[in-house]
Amino acid sequence: MGSNEFGTLFKITTWGESHGQAIGAVIDGCPAGLTISVEEIDSALSVRAPGTSPYTSPRKEADRVEILSGVFEGKTTGAPISLLIKNRDADSSKYEPVKDLLRPGHANFTYLEKYGVFDYRGGGRASARETACRVAAGAVAKKLLAHYGIEVVAWLQQVGSIEAKTYKSESSRIFCPDPQTEQEMVALLEETKTEGDSVGGIVSFLIKNAPVGLGDPVYEKLEAKLASAMMSLPASKGFEIGEGFASVSMKGSQNNDLFCERKGEIRTESNHSGGTLGGISNGMPIYGRVVFKPASSIMKTQSTLTLEGKQANLSLPEGSRHDPCVAIRAVPVVEAMAALVIADALLMNRSAKL
Amino acid sequence: MGSNEFGTLFKITTWGESHGQAIGAVIDGCPAGLTISVEEIDSALSVRAPGTSPYTSPRKEADRVEILSGVFEGKTTGAPISLLIKNRDADSSKYEPVKDLLRPGHANFTYLEKYGVFDYRGGGRASARETACRVAAGAVAKKLLAHYGIEVVAWLQQVGSIEAKTYKSESSRIFCPDPQTEQEMVALLEETKTEGDSVGGIVSFLIKNAPVGLGDPVYEKLEAKLASAMMSLPASKGFEIGEGFASVSMKGSQNNDLFCERKGEIRTESNHSGGTLGGISNGMPIYGRVVFKPASSIMKTQSTLTLEGKQANLSLPEGSRHDPCVAIRAVPVVEAMAALVIADALLMNRSAKL
Amino acid sequence: MGSNEFGTLFKITTWGESHGQAIGAVIDGCPAGLTISVEEIDSALSVRAPGTSPYTSPRKEADRVEILSGVFEGKTTGAPISLLIKNRDADSSKYEPVKDLLRPGHANFTYLEKYGVFDYRGGGRASARETACRVAAGAVAKKLLAHYGIEVVAWLQQVGSIEAKTYKSESSRIFCPDPQTEQEMVALLEETKTEGDSVGGIVSFLIKNAPVGLGDPVYEKLEAKLASAMMSLPASKGFEIGEGFASVSMKGSQNNDLFCERKGEIRTESNHSGGTLGGISNGMPIYGRVVFKPASSIMKTQSTLTLEGKQANLSLPEGSRHDPCVAIRAVPVVEAMAALVIADALLMNRSAKL
Amino acid sequence: MGSNEFGTLFKITTWGESHGQAIGAVIDGCPAGLTISVEEIDSALSVRAPGTSPYTSPRKEADRVEILSGVFEGKTTGAPISLLIKNRDADSSKYEPVKDLLRPGHANFTYLEKYGVFDYRGGGRASARETACRVAAGAVAKKLLAHYGIEVVAWLQQVGSIEAKTYKSESSRIFCPDPQTEQEMVALLEETKTEGDSVGGIVSFLIKNAPVGLGDPVYEKLEAKLASAMMSLPASKGFEIGEGFASVSMKGSQNNDLFCERKGEIRTESNHSGGTLGGISNGMPIYGRVVFKPASSIMKTQSTLTLEGKQANLSLPEGSRHDPCVAIRAVPVVEAMAALVIADALLMNRSAKL
Repeated sequence: MGSNEFGTLFKITTWGESHGQAIGAVIDGCPAGLTISVEEIDSALSVRAPGTSPYTSPRKEADRVEILSGVFEGKTTGAPISLLIKNRDADSSKYEPVKDLLRPGHANFTYLEKYGVFDYRGGGRASARETACRVAAGAVAKKLLAHYGIEVVAWLQQVGSIEAKTYKSESSRIFCPDPQTEQEMVALLEETKTEGDSVGGIVSFLIKNAPVGLGDPVYEKLEAKLASAMMSLPASKGFEIGEGFASVSMKGSQNNDLFCERKGEIRTESNHSGGTLGGISNGMPIYGRVVFKPASSIMKTQSTLTLEGKQANLSLPEGSRHDPCVAIRAVPVVEAMAALVIADALLMNRSAKL
Repeated sequence: MGSNEFGTLFKITTWGESHGQAIGAVIDGCPAGLTISVEEIDSALSVRAPGTSPYTSPRKEADRVEILSGVFEGKTTGAPISLLIKNRDADSSKYEPVKDLLRPGHANFTYLEKYGVFDYRGGGRASARETACRVAAGAVAKKLLAHYGIEVVAWLQQVGSIEAKTYKSESSRIFCPDPQTEQEMVALLEETKTEGDSVGGIVSFLIKNAPVGLGDPVYEKLEAKLASAMMSLPASKGFEIGEGFASVSMKGSQNNDLFCERKGEIRTESNHSGGTLGGISNGMPIYGRVVFKPASSIMKTQSTLTLEGKQANLSLPEGSRHDPCVAIRAVPVVEAMAALVIADALLMNRSAKL
Repeated sequence: MGSNEFGTLFKITTWGESHGQAIGAVIDGCPAGLTISVEEIDSALSVRAPGTSPYTSPRKEADRVEILSGVFEGKTTGAPISLLIKNRDADSSKYEPVKDLLRPGHANFTYLEKYGVFDYRGGGRASARETACRVAAGAVAKKLLAHYGIEVVAWLQQVGSIEAKTYKSESSRIFCPDPQTEQEMVALLEETKTEGDSVGGIVSFLIKNAPVGLGDPVYEKLEAKLASAMMSLPASKGFEIGEGFASVSMKGSQNNDLFCERKGEIRTESNHSGGTLGGISNGMPIYGRVVFKPASSIMKTQSTLTLEGKQANLSLPEGSRHDPCVAIRAVPVVEAMAALVIADALLMNRSAKL
Repeated sequence: MGSNEFGTLFKITTWGESHGQAIGAVIDGCPAGLTISVEEIDSALSVRAPGTSPYTSPRKEADRVEILSGVFEGKTTGAPISLLIKNRDADSSKYEPVKDLLRPGHANFTYLEKYGVFDYRGGGRASARETACRVAAGAVAKKLLAHYGIEVVAWLQQVGSIEAKTYKSESSRIFCPDPQTEQEMVALLEETKTEGDSVGGIVSFLIKNAPVGLGDPVYEKLEAKLASAMMSLPASKGFEIGEGFASVSMKGSQNNDLFCERKGEIRTESNHSGGTLGGISNGMPIYGRVVFKPASSIMKTQSTLTLEGKQANLSLPEGSRHDPCVAIRAVPVVEAMAALVIADALLMNRSAKL
């Protein structure tokens, strides 16, 4: 597989299947001297936890991390930080009835073809369960960023065609920043859930106080790293930075951000670019959006094939996990991935000059 | 900078500034035994060449590649393939008048801050000139893919709000697949050019006949690699695969691609996913889109700052290169990047099983 | 630290300190379909285990591995394989008396300077405890090699100036292949132990049945990979392949291995080169040697400095772990590292040709 | 091949065959702001140049580098530095007579087997010609080190069984630091040359003024990086650091370097370790040795096989390049590789702490 690693200097390797005993992450390259605790990571995991919202699947995870190495007397030592999260609610027996069926929108077909061996229990490595490790490692990255005054936030921007108009507030069960829109979203979610169907969503992220100079030219532009991070998330189908796809119908004279002085520093008047120029952060807020397709697991019966290619019907068993909108659950994961990218870019930038 | 390399097994390192003597690429990891010629690479470069369309900047490049190593008697030997392209029309004197100004939408501000040293001549490493190396290396990747029956194409999907409705045909000066739409696009380009302004564009790509199994789970999903490739292009602001951002307002029951048998193989009826499941190619065509912002270099006068932070006006000198729509020129580059991603994924996939 | 990873395609990341709760390894890139069991890994660990020989430190580890991911129904799935080994005998209280002293030959000085934070308990990440993870991961690599008929062995070649003259036999408490020499070595070890001192040693390795073609030219020659693997071991001070340092006084006409035919295949008459030509395996046995310095931890009192630079004496407390010759314990680790290098080279070699 | 790259942050990619038009190196990751000139690199190349000593092969190279990118107005810009060296004396016709023969000690057998395609002209990528690129890139690394006060030197320690007893002096045609020994070495070289034979040699290196903290634990120990660098050189067969293989017969009480204070800094009294502890530099001089086998190309007739496996005799044509001792020519290359390792370690070390 050889693809379970992310980052260059601040690097994570994650492992674990949704129905194994545990999942985990090893952070290699976190600078020594950072204060970090189990509680801080658990707190990040609890935000992600399904079950806190009625619109995410009801697995009672109550994830708790164990820090097995790399932290001594409350501080990182420079050694690799091994994080382990036990799987609790991992009864895979309910997948028995569908284990011989190709599941539309799922990876069991491609995994089976690629590896010849398939762990049918709940998606194996392709499960969104894997993202808990990103959140745990991301909590360490966020702590590192906080040390340098950098903040990363994400929120639910859109569900179906309902779009929030304002920024993140702290207290939404669905990470929607705007109470008015939240109500509309919730209504759509209820309706979708009742239908046994799912709906797409868009998550926005924002990175505040990043210094000028993060990101590297050509193949490691900051937006390329962010795009890679976000497009590696299960169910993500698109990424944009700044004006993104909307810039197609803009003129250069509208879209260019003119330079100005602000508090003695060179900044830009507008921020259509989303905070980078030539792939390098320019001191303005870095922001963008990620779209998530409607979840593939729906309660409606779908026609499919068996692993042997015979026609069949797929009906998920009662009580199967079913998220009407996976974008909700993706919000803290997008935040974590943004933090991992920026933490790595911060360290890389230490080598730019003599 | 440490960021001039792309790929894991089929790997390229590119170098060179727009106004230096030459630019180049080193391909490391191309399997031995591939037939490749200077003419094939030159032919790919000529498609990219500005000047072939009135709507790309009029540099008379007539790029010609030199293969300095790695090919013996017309075949790759397994040794690194060094490709060199001389810069011809590289008079940088016209940049003299604006060399002390921050250029809106350009990277001179961020490079200067990051490196403390700046090559002001025409954008240095941030110039789109760099993409010629991607096209040259991409021609080798395309030849490798052709050996396995895989084809990659790209075309101009949209300029401003004018969108093509059909697939690529071969003979358009602006890579527009639909003669009707091409006329409308050309009219818009003429108007934009006359105004001294620029407009955004969208480029589509399509990969045909890729086998099942390309791409790796988690952080190296095929779409993550493609996104990283495309978002590393100058002026790109967004990437999507399959339905992309449009999937936000779809239901799972619409968006899921149902499995079916086709010519004895397992395929899907529809292809909303864009040819991957769980980040791995599923045997269907792989397709997506990349948006390019309107070019930052416009002929209109813009307010800006000097490098020292003083208020100033920027007017590009007469005869400056000026593309009304950089997406046109990006078409063969998108094609090249897609080919590089798939070539690398093909080699990586050789290690999936015993 | 960012340095806890080894390999390109068959890649391991290891973590854990000698006195933390556990240590572990994540194998990323093992091909799917390989049969592997806990018992096979435990068996490799038991060979390494201190306590099996009176001349290795008496930690009663009885290491047992847990496979937390990547193996389903006894076979690798292509997903990352997470191996965890609990630390049992990890009482660090005995290090209390010496925790403020620089220990000659130890890494506490350099870790403290580099990271500013130091886990004084038993060497932290610099402890030989770390090598258990190499052995566990190496057991998986050895199983992969066995699938292709390749075998890796190592043995104790020399202790002090006593050198074995023959190849590995299976039943030596000190991995010495020659019963006669073993007796002499044991006598020297006893004497050295009684003196509270330590002595150096040399470990030989041999790789049988490797196909022609492993290893890559220039910077990734097979011997460069092997050297890097072996010189990353604690206490190793030198590496040689084939005739190694002895070749300095040979003539080319003696040292060249002449080609000949053997069983229909091209082989060489002699094997001074140690099984590679131009960094690539040539079908002959691959062999070499690694020297280990005498252990730094000795029972004799040594003059040293405190962490603050004051003069002091260091006397290890009674009952401290004390190996008279670390090379004994290094034998299975050398074997594991050789296996990891060859496994990776096997996968890399799949991309050499069309 | 995918193996033409060395380093992590200060990274080089080299290319080119001995009988192609040119060879070259791309340095990616050199910090911006370093003053470097063509003359400085040419000067390093002239030291390496064969022909300056009667005991290296008489190719009249007079290598001159072209800096094609990455340097503007005499300073590095952070962009990749492309170095190109034209091949001059590259008449390959003399290889015609032996092109169908396997050459003992050479890589044509393994290349042919691995790649199926072989560039028979003078060794292709396996030729020592490749090392000119290491020297050119190493000159940039040495300049970077000089900026931080670090110096790297290498010299010829031993030829056959004749060993120098003192350190490097500047003016020896064979890089021998001791005029007395030089005479003896020269006599042996003359004799060996007359016999049409070759002899082995040992090169020593020394790194002065490296700060404490270079190198990373576990798999990227400084000695592992140095070993990998040196064992990637053509004809190298062994590497040792500090006492190296001699430490086998030392006792711990002799070999341990006791800490002491020197000019207000913590240093060690002796330096048996060779300047590292736990893989990290400890502020003492870093030193080690590399052994080179006797050159495989000898003028004596050798029995061999044709590519088709038929018995044949190999006699090199009159006027073939023939080095009686390749270790002489390796001296500046060892120096370059040491510099590349230390430059990379310097940049890596910037991320060790908050």
